[in-house]
Amino acid sequence: MSRPRLLALLCLGLIAPAHASEPRPLAIAIHGGAGVIDPAKMTPAHAASYRAGLAAALDAGYAILERGGSSLDAVTAAVRTMEDDPQFNAGRGAVLNHDGDAELDAAIMDGHGPRAGAVAGVRHVKNPIELARLVMEKSPHVLLVAEGAEEFALEQGAVLVPREYFRTAARIRELEEARRRAGELKAAAPGPTGTVGAVALDRAGHLAAATSTGGLTDKHRGRVGDSPIVGAGTYADDDSCAVSGTGQGEFFIRQVVAYDICALVKYRRLTLAQAVRELIHEKLRRTGGEGGVIAVDRYGNIAMDFNSVGMFRGARDSRGRRDIAMYRDAQ
Amino acid sequence: MSRPRLLALLCLGLIAPAHASEPRPLAIAIHGGAGVIDPAKMTPAHAASYRAGLAAALDAGYAILERGGSSLDAVTAAVRTMEDDPQFNAGRGAVLNHDGDAELDAAIMDGHGPRAGAVAGVRHVKNPIELARLVMEKSPHVLLVAEGAEEFALEQGAVLVPREYFRTAARIRELEEARRRAGELKAAAPGPTGTVGAVALDRAGHLAAATSTGGLTDKHRGRVGDSPIVGAGTYADDDSCAVSGTGQGEFFIRQVVAYDICALVKYRRLTLAQAVRELIHEKLRRTGGEGGVIAVDRYGNIAMDFNSVGMFRGARDSRGRRDIAMYRDAQ
Repeated sequence: MSRPRLLALLCLGLIAPAHASEPRPLAIAIHGGAGVIDPAKMTPAHAASYRAGLAAALDAGYAILERGGSSLDAVTAAVRTMEDDPQFNAGRGAVLNHDGDAELDAAIMDGHGPRAGAVAGVRHVKNPIELARLVMEKSPHVLLVAEGAEEFALEQGAVLVPREYFRTAARIRELEEARRRAGELKAAAPGPTGTVGAVALDRAGHLAAATSTGGLTDKHRGRVGDSPIVGAGTYADDDSCAVSGTGQGEFFIRQVVAYDICALVKYRRLTLAQAVRELIHEKLRRTGGEGGVIAVDRYGNIAMDFNSVGMFRGARDSRGRRDIAMYRDAQ
Repeated sequence: MSRPRLLALLCLGLIAPAHASEPRPLAIAIHGGAGVIDPAKMTPAHAASYRAGLAAALDAGYAILERGGSSLDAVTAAVRTMEDDPQFNAGRGAVLNHDGDAELDAAIMDGHGPRAGAVAGVRHVKNPIELARLVMEKSPHVLLVAEGAEEFALEQGAVLVPREYFRTAARIRELEEARRRAGELKAAAPGPTGTVGAVALDRAGHLAAATSTGGLTDKHRGRVGDSPIVGAGTYADDDSCAVSGTGQGEFFIRQVVAYDICALVKYRRLTLAQAVRELIHEKLRRTGGEGGVIAVDRYGNIAMDFNSVGMFRGARDSRGRRDIAMYRDAQ
């Protein structure tokens, strides 16, 4: 152990008694998409599989917080776990665009700074959330898109994969079905998606948020939703809160949903739960927008709310809470 | 003249006396970039030419408002005028990226709705602001990027041009100079740019904002700044205000500058000028971010402020104001 770390531990030991009854809170929340699957069509086997996927991501993130790691590492690990799980619409298993390709978007934000990095429209990056983090840490930029983002991935040695990596049998079937129904859907607003995301508070009091998605099945090439847009689908600031959204991206962009929640907390002194409720059940609903968010504030309060049929989600904190749910009534 | 329009005019005639002393205000403000040219290096001929370019854009927009047109049409016309003028970093005359190409970003937002459309990383679209408007009006999406955005341009019949259209002799020289200095600049934050933008209030009380840019000279391919990001470089909502920004885009994105100004007006009841000052001289400066914004509220108040050496700008309203300025002291 390094000397500074040893000293820090000794100091913690000395001041521990004063704080023993109330250690600094840890908290993480994740989502795996809103309104994705009609509860009537969810088989017990499917439900168990989704729950296991959510639990794996939740616990991967919380383990990092528990051993003193940063919220940034925790949200990266949680999102990467869901990117690698083909059940979720991010990374492997992302939905396919009109041309039959996965086109992936992701963003990460460190509430300490704050700093942010994002990528959009990448088609060969195994873990878009890691590329978003490289943009934040290794470039002076916040957002890189399309081929330029993939060039940056090459420069940074990120893992690239062929397009077939993303094209799972289930997503190819979904695309074919969507194309058949294209006529009737053309005029409708884009439907909700299985975007994944995580927000966390670490021991040092820093907040972070991360979101990753394949967007919409059969989407127009080049369409970018809210996930990689700072303020819309992803936002974190140590002074207020961290938010990750999932739902109809265009509505989230126009309403600047993630930042607006933090603005209500900062400027109107709403609690996190009140601010989330205001956005999801008032502002978003008023315009017809469907979806949900997960959020955490600097006190470790977690809010998870949605106006869609369900939102796959999980929460865990240092007060002993650990739950996974998919629909209302914490089911 | 159609019968409903005739009837409307007659009705206006009947109620006019009550409002004659205080007609509904009209206002437009434009910018042509912040911190672009050291005042010491600005020749009188250059200054006159920039002023003429700004005046042409300002008056093109105001003429539309004056004849009862929409703020959306006014900001489109003002920005398109600057896109077509090679002095400004947007459309023809946009700065060139590391590969020697113009890569253009633009966004437009209609405060009535609100609705928004944006494009990023397009390389063959003559007027990106018109394509952004087509995204808003003819697609269910808000943001299209790169080749997908150009496919959409083709589908919609937007005017496409070869890359040489954008590559003016002056911008090729600037790129060569930037490449020579690349070593020393690599570590520095991206410098301010000559982004263009407009905000307006029309007779019907609707606000609109539009922004268009070529981004940064020698930028990494795929880099997207704040201009096409709703909430960062462009925002409009009839309930609060309309904002267009120019400066170091990454700082504007992280701070959600355009929306934050409107949030301060809505939630903390600051005046527009106070909110703009808070963002530009407090929040942005605290993080080292350089740039400025133009903004208008639903009462027709105009705020234009910057923390850079200068900001090319113009304002005109129905109270008789009409001014063009480049540096402090309204020069």
